[in-house]
Amino acid sequence: MHLAQQVVTVQLKNFQDQFPIPLTEVVERQLYVPDFGKEIANAAEKILHEVYAINYKTLAYNGQLSGRLKISIVSTGKYVMPYFLSGFIKQNEGVDLTMDVTNKSSVVGSLELNEVDFALVSVLPKKLKVNKIALMENKLFYVASNKLEIKKNLTKKKLFEQMPLIFREQGSATRNAMESFITKNNYSARKKMELTSNEAVKQAVISGLGCSIMPLIGIGNELSNKDLQIIPVKGLPLSTEWNLIWLKSKKLSPIALAYIEFLNKEKALIINEKFPWVNGFKLLP
Amino acid sequence: MHLAQQVVTVQLKNFQDQFPIPLTEVVERQLYVPDFGKEIANAAEKILHEVYAINYKTLAYNGQLSGRLKISIVSTGKYVMPYFLSGFIKQNEGVDLTMDVTNKSSVVGSLELNEVDFALVSVLPKKLKVNKIALMENKLFYVASNKLEIKKNLTKKKLFEQMPLIFREQGSATRNAMESFITKNNYSARKKMELTSNEAVKQAVISGLGCSIMPLIGIGNELSNKDLQIIPVKGLPLSTEWNLIWLKSKKLSPIALAYIEFLNKEKALIINEKFPWVNGFKLLP
Repeated sequence: MHLAQQVVTVQLKNFQDQFPIPLTEVVERQLYVPDFGKEIANAAEKILHEVYAINYKTLAYNGQLSGRLKISIVSTGKYVMPYFLSGFIKQNEGVDLTMDVTNKSSVVGSLELNEVDFALVSVLPKKLKVNKIALMENKLFYVASNKLEIKKNLTKKKLFEQMPLIFREQGSATRNAMESFITKNNYSARKKMELTSNEAVKQAVISGLGCSIMPLIGIGNELSNKDLQIIPVKGLPLSTEWNLIWLKSKKLSPIALAYIEFLNKEKALIINEKFPWVNGFKLLP
Repeated sequence: MHLAQQVVTVQLKNFQDQFPIPLTEVVERQLYVPDFGKEIANAAEKILHEVYAINYKTLAYNGQLSGRLKISIVSTGKYVMPYFLSGFIKQNEGVDLTMDVTNKSSVVGSLELNEVDFALVSVLPKKLKVNKIALMENKLFYVASNKLEIKKNLTKKKLFEQMPLIFREQGSATRNAMESFITKNNYSARKKMELTSNEAVKQAVISGLGCSIMPLIGIGNELSNKDLQIIPVKGLPLSTEWNLIWLKSKKLSPIALAYIEFLNKEKALIINEKFPWVNGFKLLP
């Protein structure tokens, strides 16, 4: 912050040096932007927009796709989405990517408000008419720190109930799945913690704060380096599916259309190459 | 969602069976809650509140701290905060933890609105009067996929500039630090991507989408399993510090006071035990 301010001050001074009229004024310790300054700011903004447009147009004339691709994804989607994007972005250098990682409620909100081209969710929104591409299966297991000693003589129910359970926040699909599982099986759960983001839950489980029901995809490293262990519990794993969805009513950009084509063509290959351990994962009895 | 709905239906039916008067009515496919249902709902809510209060009181009479501890932390804080909490939570079984992981702007917002007891930030908010405990140093390095072949004859500047750079979203302290670094050193950066959450950036770098400036603390596993590599760039690492802060004006709860005491006593030990590799990390020239 401090550094940024110094930098801005220097840049502003350099910019001012090019004009004979002040762009800013300080009156009684307050900073004002006089009319001249405002007009220069407007003009500068227009110039920048034109520069961006020229960049995109140049690429388009060269036969390259260009512009912005905006995707909103659920928290656990960060473990899969980049791998379904990297080939496409490499092929199309003119594409700028904005990817927002949040929870199910916010993702569906962005889609509904037409703020994004695509959304990655595991639960399809009922209210909206959407098209979808099913990307991958998402399996959720009961996960504990590897340092937790498992008493062999406990029933699976007791095992599940003995440790504090870490929950995701309201509005998260993982949270909903966990709550349904608990209610359906009549487990009683000691809920002590509520954390946003799947990665926060992971760090909390490793640190010994409690156990949780977590997507396999996000814990590959931690299973192999023995930070975490999966504990078999009746009724688990839960299985959902990541779907890339978009509004049926949306007029898709050329980039969005090209991305759909890319996915349909490359999906199976990407899954095979990037996620072989997830598909082949078996929990020893 | 589907599952949750079934569960709710069954539970509602069981609940209704205990009353001779309908709690809900369906008129022309619309669900209505008549006055009797509303009164029962209010009463049930009051009962639940009392049950929670009894739980807390019971613990308090037994000399145990009880109640809620609410913390809002910046995205990169998820790699450190759980380790500074686990000992405290284990010692105080009556404490419920809510931890929100978001970006700097939102964290400072929660603190200002008095929605949380503590916030974990790397940049202290200028507008607010806060107390702080410095927890740990945060070092940011230039990070690339290990599959990226580094051309040995490139200058460090060229090296930095040749790859697309992945940025965090506006309002993130990591983003601010990165932008200041780039401006200060007159690097030109090919910004092609903007992703929320540090973990999303990590996955994107591993998948080959680009490079980024990332906190060392979040990439320990990926450095040792060779998913990622650190590339030496002049002016890096940037170094900031995680601070646990709270409003000077806030009337702290007994739990919050106990937590401050815990941290002051245990801080050094936790850092030594949990993060030895971070403190000892040296980048080979």
